[in-house]
Amino acid sequence: MAELTVKIPEVKAESYKITIGAQILSSLWPKIESQFPAFNKFVVTDENLVSTGHLKELLGKRDIPTFVISPPGEISKNTNTVIAIIEAMEKAALGRDTLVIALGGGTVGDIAGFAAAIFKRGVPIAHIPTTTVAQADSSIGGKTGVDSSISKNAFGAFWQPAAVYIDVETLKTLPDREYRAGLVESVKHALIADSKYFAFFEGNIEAILEREPKVLEEIAEFNCRIKANVVEADPTEKNQRRILNYGHTIGHAVESASGYELLHGEAVAIGIIGAAFIEIELGIGSKKRLTRIKNILEKLAVPTEMPQKVQKETLIELIKRDKKAINKWPKFVLLDKLGAVHVSQDKWAIDVPQDVVEKVLEKI
Amino acid sequence: MAELTVKIPEVKAESYKITIGAQILSSLWPKIESQFPAFNKFVVTDENLVSTGHLKELLGKRDIPTFVISPPGEISKNTNTVIAIIEAMEKAALGRDTLVIALGGGTVGDIAGFAAAIFKRGVPIAHIPTTTVAQADSSIGGKTGVDSSISKNAFGAFWQPAAVYIDVETLKTLPDREYRAGLVESVKHALIADSKYFAFFEGNIEAILEREPKVLEEIAEFNCRIKANVVEADPTEKNQRRILNYGHTIGHAVESASGYELLHGEAVAIGIIGAAFIEIELGIGSKKRLTRIKNILEKLAVPTEMPQKVQKETLIELIKRDKKAINKWPKFVLLDKLGAVHVSQDKWAIDVPQDVVEKVLEKI
Repeated sequence: MAELTVKIPEVKAESYKITIGAQILSSLWPKIESQFPAFNKFVVTDENLVSTGHLKELLGKRDIPTFVISPPGEISKNTNTVIAIIEAMEKAALGRDTLVIALGGGTVGDIAGFAAAIFKRGVPIAHIPTTTVAQADSSIGGKTGVDSSISKNAFGAFWQPAAVYIDVETLKTLPDREYRAGLVESVKHALIADSKYFAFFEGNIEAILEREPKVLEEIAEFNCRIKANVVEADPTEKNQRRILNYGHTIGHAVESASGYELLHGEAVAIGIIGAAFIEIELGIGSKKRLTRIKNILEKLAVPTEMPQKVQKETLIELIKRDKKAINKWPKFVLLDKLGAVHVSQDKWAIDVPQDVVEKVLEKI
Repeated sequence: MAELTVKIPEVKAESYKITIGAQILSSLWPKIESQFPAFNKFVVTDENLVSTGHLKELLGKRDIPTFVISPPGEISKNTNTVIAIIEAMEKAALGRDTLVIALGGGTVGDIAGFAAAIFKRGVPIAHIPTTTVAQADSSIGGKTGVDSSISKNAFGAFWQPAAVYIDVETLKTLPDREYRAGLVESVKHALIADSKYFAFFEGNIEAILEREPKVLEEIAEFNCRIKANVVEADPTEKNQRRILNYGHTIGHAVESASGYELLHGEAVAIGIIGAAFIEIELGIGSKKRLTRIKNILEKLAVPTEMPQKVQKETLIELIKRDKKAINKWPKFVLLDKLGAVHVSQDKWAIDVPQDVVEKVLEKI
């Protein structure tokens, strides 16, 4: 018997740029061309971006092969769509020298990013996120994937973007409920990482709700900086990246228990309130902090109380099936104070007894 | 407008072990358990491995969730199979702490490796290759993928194995034609990297054809060492890894033009003869070298002449559509001498005028 060792060489550090601006979409193409001159371009978007006119703004009169996901939304986040995208790329005679450009919300980015990750063993992806969630969160950090009939992101890859372009003007065409729910991820960023950002949110909530470009640009910068810092420290979610999960352990359960009638951000809002109650129970929170958080969420007009139809028992069962803790009680990300996660023995997520969670679920 | 930079940290160098032996399959499981104690195990194999008894040898009486690809072979190398594997993993309640174990030939390894690469954004894969091609080539180096209706490996990922276990005894159950065709990749390794290995092949051809375990173990070691060196230098095929493509530019075209009646290795044998003729035309080859190569391929009883039904014009068209050179004339990997690739200006694949290739295609 013989034994050989194969070395897998290190992969050198790289970087990518996030460009943030207002009304930059219609002049973006030449910039993309100058940043990726050696690549053919292929655009993935969905019907929403066609009807809002954003696809046309991006392409102008250019004849670029484009795949329009239809219908838009989670319902198309599956392997059929990915297969259709890749076969469209093949029919357009595209090869490994192709840049995929994802124009749209989180779903478009997840699907297009995954297609780019597996097309002929991987081609680069540029994201142009057009929703509050995608601009704050999903376009940065390289998580891609589609759902199976059994679970979310059952198929996926870590595939870092080659570039991200954020035009905050695209948020103007978002439906109000989606716009506001998406901002919950921004509130989450402020809570886990930056008390000044939270104060900025409090001080500018009217301008935010009115979608003033200047303020939206500042928010985009706060979000990208926070998300980038976390992702740089832990690109494949081994430990620290879990802090982005703040409010999500209860949030995911609420989202599922509502039969997905609640938007993701709305469910996370309730999850954040739950986390704040747990912090009080464990002696690391305060009623004053809870009130500040609740105030801002109420101004966003997202729910801060559990919908009546959601049963506590259902939530407990769903929490036990949390994807981060298969078949066992998950750990929780909690705050020490506004802008700082509670870290215990180098762990960013900690044990919370089930009875404490049950008690808290009664209160919200 | 603002611009931020996100750093993608370096990925540290890693390594994996290749274990080579004879009759090690039935005692392999405890070794896998000891090397991967923290992982649930999931086996992917195909019907051939069930009928030869190799699956049973590996598992004994252990109750391990297993996916059996049916029918075996290229026909199942598609997204349907990958989706079925991943849904089987979900139904077995497996999570990110799962080791996928691929038991079988190149097709099983490609499919299972790709499934592992994309299951919940990636879980480790161990390969137990059981064919001459898989043991020499495909199990090492991290290329995974499945075909679309349009092209081979249209869906894929680079996903390095966590371990490779080679039991040369499994080759005893291979059909003779497949066994011999698979050895062409070993001849290719000798040609591009090691004249001593080529001499070993010449000196032991009878024992090789009789599948003597001792000699097969030595061949496996030669192959793994050569493949590992190339892959270590260039894991994602940016340049040097292309030398593994020796004989494949013409070979792929012949394989396709034969309507896949020729096995991959058989087509590559013709491709190797073609490359040797090109070397003579360009003044870097010799008739003596060609004769030595032809002798060894004839002893393997693989074709060294173009099948009558294959038209030169068809081949030229197919060569133009080579996946490594979309819409243009591809570059060729050629030899300076036995065991050494011709390198010109740091390039491992060089331009060969189309008329030279046409002339050569007339001769073989």
